[in-house]
Amino acid sequence: MALPHAQSCEVVSLRPLGPRLHDTPTSALIKAGQLEVIRVVLPAGKEQHQHDAPGEITLLCLEGEVLFQAGAQSHTLREGDFLHLVPRIPHVLRALQDASLLVTICLVPVRA
Amino acid sequence: MALPHAQSCEVVSLRPLGPRLHDTPTSALIKAGQLEVIRVVLPAGKEQHQHDAPGEITLLCLEGEVLFQAGAQSHTLREGDFLHLVPRIPHVLRALQDASLLVTICLVPVRA
Repeated sequence: MALPHAQSCEVVSLRPLGPRLHDTPTSALIKAGQLEVIRVVLPAGKEQHQHDAPGEITLLCLEGEVLFQAGAQSHTLREGDFLHLVPRIPHVLRALQDASLLVTICLVPVRA
Repeated sequence: MALPHAQSCEVVSLRPLGPRLHDTPTSALIKAGQLEVIRVVLPAGKEQHQHDAPGEITLLCLEGEVLFQAGAQSHTLREGDFLHLVPRIPHVLRALQDASLLVTICLVPVRA
């Protein structure tokens, strides 16, 4: 069952999941008019397949270690590492250790 | 001097500033077409005056303790506490302890 989204001004804890990580699915925290916010949970070895988004996105590693790849660029993200992506950049995330990330997606289409 | 903004795919560390907090100004990490991302640094007792934003925003407390107030709502945010705000909600942040926050602002105006 999908978890309900948080409401405006509702506080959500994004502290590291630690041992609860394996029992916690990826979930959308917010899906509003302009922004979607997802906590992506990736146990070690798991991958989020290549995908892109029609708007800008940001990633913040909340715990663990994740390999981020976009074209020729590759970064290992650890707790507290943040990056921004312009729209339509295909990218892959692969967990090197149990990890979770905060992903913020702008849902507003970019004007051509 | 303003710090340069990060580029797409550039990794920025948002780990707690700790003792460096008092020497670190608030800065815009990203100012792109759709999203602006700011690390707000508030030493204990300091306040970010009431303001609002034309688009949706999210706040994530990165360290310390901050009192968030919007109308009749009031929350104490600690490390890992996150919230989303619909557009044009006047709000105030006041640091109860030395604190920094990640603030993401959607720059796209909301259609009337």
